[in-house]
Amino acid sequence: MTAQNGPVALVIGAGDATGGAIARRFAAGGYTAVMTRRPRNIEQLEALAGVIGAAGGKAHAFGIDAREEAEMVPFIERVEAEIGPIEVAVFNIGANVRFGITDTTSRVYRKVWEMGAFAGFLTGREAARHMLPRGRGTIIFTGATASVRGGEGYAAFAGAKHALRALAQSMARELGPKGIHVAHAVIDGAIDTAFIRENFPDRYSLKAQDGVLQPDDIAEAYWMLHRQPPSAWSFELDLRPWIEQW
Amino acid sequence: MTAQNGPVALVIGAGDATGGAIARRFAAGGYTAVMTRRPRNIEQLEALAGVIGAAGGKAHAFGIDAREEAEMVPFIERVEAEIGPIEVAVFNIGANVRFGITDTTSRVYRKVWEMGAFAGFLTGREAARHMLPRGRGTIIFTGATASVRGGEGYAAFAGAKHALRALAQSMARELGPKGIHVAHAVIDGAIDTAFIRENFPDRYSLKAQDGVLQPDDIAEAYWMLHRQPPSAWSFELDLRPWIEQW
Amino acid sequence: MTAQNGPVALVIGAGDATGGAIARRFAAGGYTAVMTRRPRNIEQLEALAGVIGAAGGKAHAFGIDAREEAEMVPFIERVEAEIGPIEVAVFNIGANVRFGITDTTSRVYRKVWEMGAFAGFLTGREAARHMLPRGRGTIIFTGATASVRGGEGYAAFAGAKHALRALAQSMARELGPKGIHVAHAVIDGAIDTAFIRENFPDRYSLKAQDGVLQPDDIAEAYWMLHRQPPSAWSFELDLRPWIEQW
Amino acid sequence: MTAQNGPVALVIGAGDATGGAIARRFAAGGYTAVMTRRPRNIEQLEALAGVIGAAGGKAHAFGIDAREEAEMVPFIERVEAEIGPIEVAVFNIGANVRFGITDTTSRVYRKVWEMGAFAGFLTGREAARHMLPRGRGTIIFTGATASVRGGEGYAAFAGAKHALRALAQSMARELGPKGIHVAHAVIDGAIDTAFIRENFPDRYSLKAQDGVLQPDDIAEAYWMLHRQPPSAWSFELDLRPWIEQW
Repeated sequence: MTAQNGPVALVIGAGDATGGAIARRFAAGGYTAVMTRRPRNIEQLEALAGVIGAAGGKAHAFGIDAREEAEMVPFIERVEAEIGPIEVAVFNIGANVRFGITDTTSRVYRKVWEMGAFAGFLTGREAARHMLPRGRGTIIFTGATASVRGGEGYAAFAGAKHALRALAQSMARELGPKGIHVAHAVIDGAIDTAFIRENFPDRYSLKAQDGVLQPDDIAEAYWMLHRQPPSAWSFELDLRPWIEQW
Repeated sequence: MTAQNGPVALVIGAGDATGGAIARRFAAGGYTAVMTRRPRNIEQLEALAGVIGAAGGKAHAFGIDAREEAEMVPFIERVEAEIGPIEVAVFNIGANVRFGITDTTSRVYRKVWEMGAFAGFLTGREAARHMLPRGRGTIIFTGATASVRGGEGYAAFAGAKHALRALAQSMARELGPKGIHVAHAVIDGAIDTAFIRENFPDRYSLKAQDGVLQPDDIAEAYWMLHRQPPSAWSFELDLRPWIEQW
Repeated sequence: MTAQNGPVALVIGAGDATGGAIARRFAAGGYTAVMTRRPRNIEQLEALAGVIGAAGGKAHAFGIDAREEAEMVPFIERVEAEIGPIEVAVFNIGANVRFGITDTTSRVYRKVWEMGAFAGFLTGREAARHMLPRGRGTIIFTGATASVRGGEGYAAFAGAKHALRALAQSMARELGPKGIHVAHAVIDGAIDTAFIRENFPDRYSLKAQDGVLQPDDIAEAYWMLHRQPPSAWSFELDLRPWIEQW
Repeated sequence: MTAQNGPVALVIGAGDATGGAIARRFAAGGYTAVMTRRPRNIEQLEALAGVIGAAGGKAHAFGIDAREEAEMVPFIERVEAEIGPIEVAVFNIGANVRFGITDTTSRVYRKVWEMGAFAGFLTGREAARHMLPRGRGTIIFTGATASVRGGEGYAAFAGAKHALRALAQSMARELGPKGIHVAHAVIDGAIDTAFIRENFPDRYSLKAQDGVLQPDDIAEAYWMLHRQPPSAWSFELDLRPWIEQW
């Protein structure tokens, strides 16, 4: 990792689908994409960095456990010191599990919160810490239907997602007047991923008719949020396929 | 009015601020802007059509009372027959009044609903009627903070705005799977208008620091909604200046 | 109609189910029930007044079109002058219709709003007018799932119900600090009525297991709302059968 | 602790105000109140048990850290085995803190969630585990304004409260059709506590005019929720003083 010029788009949770597409979109827009994934998936992430680089973009891949403050704080310090100022931070980690209430272990309940909310808190707080002196920046949190509605089996997942939305809304109200645009996207529907392809083939078959959320289209919405002029910022927008029942 | 080629962007309520900016934006994007205002303001609207035309766009101005079914139905028929297919319909009429409950006359309560909700129903229904056989189109309704929250003095205004949002949501759920994108924008904050300039000068003075919603920025968000790919449609987004307390 | 002592509970829309049960509950609690229905149903309403009277309560039946200001204003004046002070006003008229958007006539859209929202506005405003000088009173509006959510086919019904909720919330915020308790009940589920029995027999068969809302249970909730001490008022509560999917 | 007859009302977080009042109310209604507080406050809680006993009620006080699964699971087992079946479980622990986002330590963020959400999860899950075989029971969670709205300085508190509401809603949707009534009360306003008296004296001075929430009035609402017949259950209700601005 060597110092480079240019603003940074930090993507915490840059998996194969949404997070990766967001990193590609911001790299295409001239940002240096700084991407993280769990250390065990670092090889895929480095491959993605290679793809972005081959397309003429700049990207860095890091294996980070975003739930660990002792990793996250110095990591973000280092990005700022060695790569560039974080102009955009995207938090994109979820943990969609579904268990009836009595089958939800405390380990699952806690882990889902740590991944879906606590890691988002660390990301948002540390990004804000560096953005505040500059009086500008964009922080986007990825939400889901469970962000706004609990449901059978979703005590853990909806709990984490509701908490993340509360974080986003609290930060937006505090940081907006300080020049930092905080937004929350409610992704409502199946995304075009290997997981959906393998586990929900009927659903996946709708892809041909645009019935599955395309990561590139989600990424475009995040790019749009970042580009909104300060006279007209959105805090929240929902995204779903045209055929979705909601 | 003579038949022309090209898709139509219909703007019901194209005043000096938001509606006018939306018409300009879609005209700049290659659409024929078909704009309406109350008959008594037709001169300003014709001037706006002239401005769009001078900039190389296409625009038509009509004096229409959007609350009158006997005017709206044939008008929209005529647009389709003589100008072009309505690809986009924007309903942009509001009627922001504030009266304590016992000072709210039934005339005011009804008129605010006729302007803010009933005219939106006529617009949305007639646009949908023509879009359905084509299986595509965009219908956008302009909302406000009062769309999602009642408040002291807002029985009439919030009533109309809540009803309009219920219309938009009901239409979105019915028409999305039929290929028609229905969206609702919650405009939260003062817009850069003569009304705000004259009545809220302190507020207006924030314009220099982007503290007042710019009609062109709102229009850009509407354009973005229309351009969303069917894999990732938004039903609702909010728009407010960065410094807004909310 | 002769002058009597005792506070009045006014029920606008006292049909065979919910409204009638509310009138009975307040009569049992010592209030003089003043009940209205459309003139064409006055016979059933007079029968209900007879039932209440036979049980030792006081009740008056009036055939009133609650959408007509010219009827409502003098009617409420007369209740205050000749029967007693209105301590409680309940608005209980709905108009649950379901039509696809292009099959929704302007006549239906307007009529559903007049019954579900405009009549509620007249009821609430006129009740408030008499309660304000006394600095006390309770006004309760009956809502439905469509009060908080639009859906396919519900442009008209959800529009009216959203408007009614906006009215209730605006009035609650204005009148609470003036001593008047305004509340909104979201009735979510089928009520034990002849309509449900005849049109949804499968649903109605759940009655034996408490799967259908009992009007007397709804009435008890309204009584509870009225009895809340001023230190702890509720604006909104939902009511649904235990087995309801929501 | 010796085995007794009679159903149990379990109150997790029975402090001097709301939780204590709830325990007293259910004891007065014939339930055996089983109350917990942090071990360091066990003396006050034992005093409260004494007060309830002196009034003819039954009460047990336990010093429990409700965030500790290894304490909570056997504790609730023991209540069921030695005291009686838990018919009502109330979760009443909050942790209202306010810090700007960059001043929110990870320790605070985590602790507020552990107290406000994780302990609620343990309470709700263990209560449900014992209620499910019986097919009945009531579980009530105490919420706040921050349950439904984030705000400047409330990233931690609103996060925990949103998560708790998501838990309540998910449990209500799963357990309602199994006979268990899960409810959530949104307490909106200052409660009559020593904390408010000492820190917000202006606010507290409104007590004389019922401008401060009385714990006994909140407790009455919880009692009402528990007594609702299964045909008409509420999931959520808000409670605020009449003069509250909201």
